[in-house]
Order: sequence, then structure tokens, then C-alpha cells
Amino acid sequence: MPADFRAQLPALANKTYFNYGGQGPLPSSSLEAITAAWCTIQELGPFTGEVWPFVEQTSSQLRQHLAGWFGVPAHRLAFSENVTSGCVLPLWGLPWQAGDELLISDCEHPGVVAACRELAHRQGLVLTTLPVADLLGTADDTNKQVLQRLDRQLSPATRLVVLSHLLWNTGQVMPIAAVAGQLSSHPKQPWLLVDGAQSLGAIPIEAAAAAADIYGCTGHKWCCGPEGLGAVALSERVVREARPTLIGWRSLSHEASGQSEFHTDSRRFEVATSCIPLCAGLEQSLHLLEAEGTAEERLALIQQRSGYLWQGLQANPRARTLLEVPPPAGLVSFEISGEDPEMVVKRLGEQGIWLRSLDDPHCLRACTHITTTEAEIDQLLGALQAF
Amino acid sequence: MPADFRAQLPALANKTYFNYGGQGPLPSSSLEAITAAWCTIQELGPFTGEVWPFVEQTSSQLRQHLAGWFGVPAHRLAFSENVTSGCVLPLWGLPWQAGDELLISDCEHPGVVAACRELAHRQGLVLTTLPVADLLGTADDTNKQVLQRLDRQLSPATRLVVLSHLLWNTGQVMPIAAVAGQLSSHPKQPWLLVDGAQSLGAIPIEAAAAAADIYGCTGHKWCCGPEGLGAVALSERVVREARPTLIGWRSLSHEASGQSEFHTDSRRFEVATSCIPLCAGLEQSLHLLEAEGTAEERLALIQQRSGYLWQGLQANPRARTLLEVPPPAGLVSFEISGEDPEMVVKRLGEQGIWLRSLDDPHCLRACTHITTTEAEIDQLLGALQAF
Repeated sequence: MPADFRAQLPALANKTYFNYGGQGPLPSSSLEAITAAWCTIQELGPFTGEVWPFVEQTSSQLRQHLAGWFGVPAHRLAFSENVTSGCVLPLWGLPWQAGDELLISDCEHPGVVAACRELAHRQGLVLTTLPVADLLGTADDTNKQVLQRLDRQLSPATRLVVLSHLLWNTGQVMPIAAVAGQLSSHPKQPWLLVDGAQSLGAIPIEAAAAAADIYGCTGHKWCCGPEGLGAVALSERVVREARPTLIGWRSLSHEASGQSEFHTDSRRFEVATSCIPLCAGLEQSLHLLEAEGTAEERLALIQQRSGYLWQGLQANPRARTLLEVPPPAGLVSFEISGEDPEMVVKRLGEQGIWLRSLDDPHCLRACTHITTTEAEIDQLLGALQAF
Repeated sequence: MPADFRAQLPALANKTYFNYGGQGPLPSSSLEAITAAWCTIQELGPFTGEVWPFVEQTSSQLRQHLAGWFGVPAHRLAFSENVTSGCVLPLWGLPWQAGDELLISDCEHPGVVAACRELAHRQGLVLTTLPVADLLGTADDTNKQVLQRLDRQLSPATRLVVLSHLLWNTGQVMPIAAVAGQLSSHPKQPWLLVDGAQSLGAIPIEAAAAAADIYGCTGHKWCCGPEGLGAVALSERVVREARPTLIGWRSLSHEASGQSEFHTDSRRFEVATSCIPLCAGLEQSLHLLEAEGTAEERLALIQQRSGYLWQGLQANPRARTLLEVPPPAGLVSFEISGEDPEMVVKRLGEQGIWLRSLDDPHCLRACTHITTTEAEIDQLLGALQAF
């Protein structure tokens, strides 16, 4: 039950929290799992023949577990420090040719955009834009429009499409599997890079992750895992065609030799030493979420709460939600007319209510998770009404 | 005193440990500092206006602290997940031209070698070798030979030299500052990349780190910090000339915009979300080491113990140390004639004594740190004698 899960989240005990899309609260049992893993590593190792089975089991268990959530075989899943590394590392290793076009949605995160700009700068690529920021209506209409606009923006030179699954600013869900289907009939069969920063742990992702070429996620937002650990699912063709960029002993099939070939699976995009205890923490957080229901059931809970907030905002004459319909997931972006978003964040923070502002569009964003209560939403709505 | 420090290291309580060069033991108070940081982040955040000062202070305090150990201003120090990321990320962003030569020592770690090979493959660069593996004598002779060989191997096309500070296989120390001096009189002024995986926490590094262009380190070996956190010191010219490769919000001067410029300091080589609590753990480990003496005093202790082991091995007719003189730091590489190194590691492990084997040269390596006792060394020497 959410009540039990909530009791495990000290971050929620002393504040009214709506920033799950920034970072999720870490359950106390996940922190205990992290600490226990560190203690085990010290007891068995840290660098001994006795510790390797534990290290291997801790990471491969999580890889298997996440592969189930992603709906891809484990050999197509690589760990990364964060979602940006997961998206960008395989990107840099694709076989680019000068003049190739990158079609990027206008709702992508600044880090991914900047990485694409730098890649374009170095390889002589061309950036074009897929407008999706203004799609604020129903899922049916949004999906139709995305595919129509994709068709319009694709050119014979398009080699990659970059599109988030759940847009971090408007909160809209993109039809990733349908986009992938459309790209497969393009003569160049462009790669599809999906930023899943907001999706893993929030909405079912199997169909999208299995259809994308690069589907990068993080464990520290909607999964409520520790910061510093993410994963990326790669298509068979990316595993085959892309070369690793950041290379370390973990990329190599024979780690003791600099002449070694790279791993033939997704591990070629892993680098070197990372923090294994974080795997134990994310593993525990995934178990806790699973105990609350399937991905579909959890999304229904999330939607119920975001819908309640969205409805409440309609009743505030000064509030305007970005979406014209109840949100498809847990991101609720809105404005309060005449109020500077940064000032609203500050003044709500003084009351212990935490949401965030966005720059583009310049607005507020409140997230609801399965742990969000109606009382919290009422508190936020009341505080906004009082402005 | 080392006795107090040792009492804080649960990893040393149940085994005889000689793998500090693989991974150092984590002090219990460092693990407590990590856990405490996580609890504070949950109490204040995890994503609120109240948590940012704590996050900023935790990372900037460590950056300042490490900058002191590196002997460079803090704005030239970037955090990285591990030593490989720290070395390779700025490397990929340097302004290469086809035909440029990379002169790489024959004692570099496979990860760095493989990254240089991939870079050469993509950019049309040429790899040449600086032989140092056979330099097994006194520091004076080694330093002289390194500079002579460098002079011989440098060509007009040399654009980068890659050399570890403390060689992970032979245990020899390289004269980094003198190498940098020699490179500065080369017409192309080649960049100097130093892999400091074995040096930070083991030997004083200020002169070398200040002289190098890229000096990458990790906190989880000789510093006894947590795995998953390293740092790299960059020269002013690398900060100015190199472009970031893996790019995320932390690389950007205005993190909310994909059109943003990169940071003008070393943060341009940082990427996105990483695990802040690790900073608190490394900070505590640095304090514990400082309480044991200055870098020079600690090296004297390390040398005393490695010298004791080296001397003891001379007395074993079947043992042959790689170095002809007592080691300049804590790495003691050796062979036992007629014994397969992997089998020796396995059989010693069964007795709770842990060292490692190396592939090239195919041998054994035992590390001594300030926590190593004479009794442990005697135990190792006795076990080797019994073969």
C-alpha cells in the first residue's frame, strides 16, 4: 500500500513534495541495502577473489531486473552514471557522415541538446527541429500530430531522431513505438534516441524501450533509487554498429589487455569502476515499487493524483495548466498569471511545499507520484489560491 | 597513529590485505559520512531550495580539499566517476589533426590504451611507444633513462604523451615534472596526460599534477575513499582548448538552456547527476589520512613497509622482485619461479592473504600502505616460503 511505502520515505516526513521529476525520495530500506552492500564488500574484499561473485551478482541481478522493466534482453542494457551519459555515450560512437541530419524535438533536456550541438559541430552534422512543445491536447491528437510532423520534418539526410518519451516540460507522452515504426520505413532508417529520464518508474516503457535504438534512463527520479546510477537500452544494431567512446576496463572483453576487443554486448558502453552499492539500493527501490502494483496500476494511481491536481488548478482563476486535458502521467506544468515562477517556488518553499520552475516554457511544474496524497495536493492548491 | 586508522577499517579485520592498488579499504567513519550525507539530503531535499547549499558545500569543500592535494587551483579540478573517465573525457576534446602522434608508455593501463587506440582510429592519429617497463633500477637512473628515451621517441608530429605517475605494474615512479619540462621545449609543446590511479594518496603529487595537462586520479585506491568518485586536474591550456565530449547540465554555464555555453573552468568536463554522498565519504577519508602525517611522512611509512617486503623477498631463493632496488612507493611486483601467478593468488587467498596477479609482465603484485603491519608482511613471506 502507498501508506506503507510512504512510511519508508523520510524525505516526505517533513515537507510537501512535488519534485519527483527532479529527484525521487530514497526509501530507508534502499539506503540500508546500499550500506549493507558496502559492509559486505568490506567484509569479503574490497579486492579479493571472494568479493567478485558478490559484485557480479549485485550488478547482474539489477541488470536482469531492469531488463525486465525495459522489456529488452539483459545483454542490450548498459549501466551509466546518469541518463545523459547513457544517451550520449553510444551517440558519439555511431558511424556519422558529414551532412547527416539530427532531428531533435523542441522539448529535449538542455544536456542532450548541448551534446547533440557539440557532436554536430565536430562531425559536420545538421540539426533540425521537431516541434512538439505546442501539443497540449488529448493523447490521440498528440500522437497523430507527432507522426504528421515527423513525416514533414524527415529528410533524406535524417540519420537520427531525438525525442523524450515523457516530455519533462509539458508532461506529454510521445508515441515512441509508432515513431520507431515510421522511421523503419524511411530509406535511411534513422536511429531513434529516447531520453527516458521521466519515464522509468512512472509509466510502462517496454514497448518504447524495445522500439528505440538508444533508450536512456536514471534510477534516481521516479524509481526512487540513489543518485549516480542509470541504465540505457540499446538496439541490436546500435550494439553492433556503434563504437564506444569513453573506454575503460569494463568496455573490454579481456580487461587485462589494451589490445583487447570491446565487449560484443552493451557492456562495451560501460567504462570503469563505478559504485556497486548503488545497484543494491536501486534493486530494493524497484522491489518496493513492484509491491505497489504493476507499472500500469502505478500509472493509474499517478494519473489519479495528477488529474486531481490538474482539476483543482482549473478551479483557480489565476492558474493556467499547460495541458488542456488531464495529464497522461505525473507531470503537471502550469502558470499563475502575474506571478514570477521563481518567486512562487520560493514562497511555497517557505511553507514547506516544493515544486520547481522551468525556463522554457517559463512556468511551474508539480509532480505527483504514487506516494502523493490528496491532502498534499489540497495544501498546494490552497497555497496557490492564497496568492 | 596507523593503529587507530587500522581500527577503522573492517576490511582489514578478517584478512591479510595487499591489494590497496586495486581498491583501498573504506573506513567505517567514511561510510558513516556517506550515510549521513544521504540522510541530510533526504531531510532537506532531495530536490528543494533547502538542499542545494548542502549539495554545493559538500562538493565544493571536497573540490577545494583535493585541489590542495593536487596543488592546483580548484577551478582546474573536475570530478569524474573514475580515473579512466577523468583521463579520457578531456582527451577526446583536444583539437586533434590527422597524423598527430600519441606517444604512450608501455606501462599504461589497458583502459587508457584502448581509449587512445579508439581515438587514433577515429581521428587518424598515430600511436608510438615510450618503453619504460624495463626500467627497474634506482630513481636516478630511471629518471635519466626516461628523459633520454623521451627525447629519442619524440617526433615533430608528437602531440600527446601518456605516462602514469606511479606505474601500476613495475611500481616505478616516473619523473613527471621533468618530462613536462622537456615537452615544453618541443616545437609542438605536446600535451602530457598522466594516469594517477596509483599515486593520489600514495605519494606527493603536487609537482606532477601542476606540471601535467591532464592528471586523472581516483579516490577508491590509496585514498581509501568510496568507489565511483575520482578527480582530474587540467592545465589552463586544456581547460581553454579542449571541448567537452560527454555533455550534461553540469557542463553548461546556464544549465537550463541547450544553447548555453560550456563552463569556462574545469566543470565543462563534468556531465550530469552523480552521487554527492560519495564526496562526503572521500572527504572523511582524506581527513583520516592527513591525521596520519603529511604526504611525505605517509610515503616514508609506505616505503618502510614495501622495503621490508622487498628485502624479505630477496631472502627467498625462488622469489624474484621486478625492481632491483627497494620500491619508491608501495607496489611490490615479483615472481615465484615455477609457480603460475594465478595459482599463487588462489592458494594465498585460501589462507586469507590477498594480492593479485598481473598479465604483463606476468607476475604477482603486493601493495603495502601505511596500515600494513610487519606481522602481515611476515605472514606473506612465510606463506611464499612454504610454496
